[in-house]
Amino acid sequence: MLIRDLMTTPVTTVTPVTLISAALQLMDDAKITALPVVDRRDALVGIVSEADLVEDENLIGDRVPATVLKIPGPTPPRRVADVMTHLVVSVGPHEDLEAAIDLMRQTMVKSLPVVEHNRVVGIISRSDVIHLLAGRDRRVQTEVADLLHAESPDWEVQVQDGIVTITGPADPHERHLAEVLTGTVRGVIGVQINRLSSRVMDGQPSTGT
Amino acid sequence: MLIRDLMTTPVTTVTPVTLISAALQLMDDAKITALPVVDRRDALVGIVSEADLVEDENLIGDRVPATVLKIPGPTPPRRVADVMTHLVVSVGPHEDLEAAIDLMRQTMVKSLPVVEHNRVVGIISRSDVIHLLAGRDRRVQTEVADLLHAESPDWEVQVQDGIVTITGPADPHERHLAEVLTGTVRGVIGVQINRLSSRVMDGQPSTGT
Repeated sequence: MLIRDLMTTPVTTVTPVTLISAALQLMDDAKITALPVVDRRDALVGIVSEADLVEDENLIGDRVPATVLKIPGPTPPRRVADVMTHLVVSVGPHEDLEAAIDLMRQTMVKSLPVVEHNRVVGIISRSDVIHLLAGRDRRVQTEVADLLHAESPDWEVQVQDGIVTITGPADPHERHLAEVLTGTVRGVIGVQINRLSSRVMDGQPSTGT
Repeated sequence: MLIRDLMTTPVTTVTPVTLISAALQLMDDAKITALPVVDRRDALVGIVSEADLVEDENLIGDRVPATVLKIPGPTPPRRVADVMTHLVVSVGPHEDLEAAIDLMRQTMVKSLPVVEHNRVVGIISRSDVIHLLAGRDRRVQTEVADLLHAESPDWEVQVQDGIVTITGPADPHERHLAEVLTGTVRGVIGVQINRLSSRVMDGQPSTGT
């Protein structure tokens, strides 16, 4: 699977001069945790995340003020450039998804802008990976069952954590074919084959029944 | 503001024996980024986050498998206890919100379970703080305007990043009162007072008009 297959696109971006109050509103309304910051040509110049905003000393202050600052003249509103992170790790849409996952693991960054031809075209986040994993067992079950049922309608397919348990015909040739077919499905980590009969399965301890 | 005023409650929790596949589903369905892990008495024993799941080598594997593990016998499904973080920073519902924000800043933890009498009663996350900040200027504007309009309907109130600009009567007594009243509103960082007249405001450079 490539990054472009899982990334969020189009992506909500801001510019360095976007008001922080507007960025907060965008993040809160759309439940986004990070916004890529781009210039006029959509080139990536930074990222502003929940963490950047929560860490900003100037923004927080929700207690009743002990002393309120008396401000003599108009103050310029605060802008994204005041809080954004400048050094941003990014990925390309045609890179393997595993590259993005490796980067998330190594850097503890939770959102990676996706850049192509110097333009931001998407964003990929931990929550996208969670979404993929949450749906994986179900998707693998469907794909493996479709493949095996074309060979024999007797195969039963169960999937847990990417490990596929198939139960069906005793014929060695059919069993080998089923194993090979299962191995072609994206996301499969392991295969266990059982016989359809009710006899005690290989590898299970005898319990005296 | 106290933590209980902003926390999410009731909170979705899991136990150490919850299947990881079920935890993934919960997080994906409800768009939650962290689940407190509790024992039978709802006492906090850990937390499982997006990061814990994305870092888990055993779960990821979305490429077509080069070699599929042939598994001889049934494998136990993976459970929350296999990946959860055991040492959890928590807060109390009656603590000041600033305490939670300070902890988020110091530890880079984005979600803090809220514990009372040894039971998990809620969770507070960076996104709750973002929500608070996103609505703050509007809330402050309303509260300050209500207070000042009780004194004089002539006050105009604008708020940007917690800084309140009030424009109104020239009478020094009224202005002082307005300033004190504004300072009693939660979330106000600074106050700037202008006169209602159209003369050049104090502190602004003369532009020859």
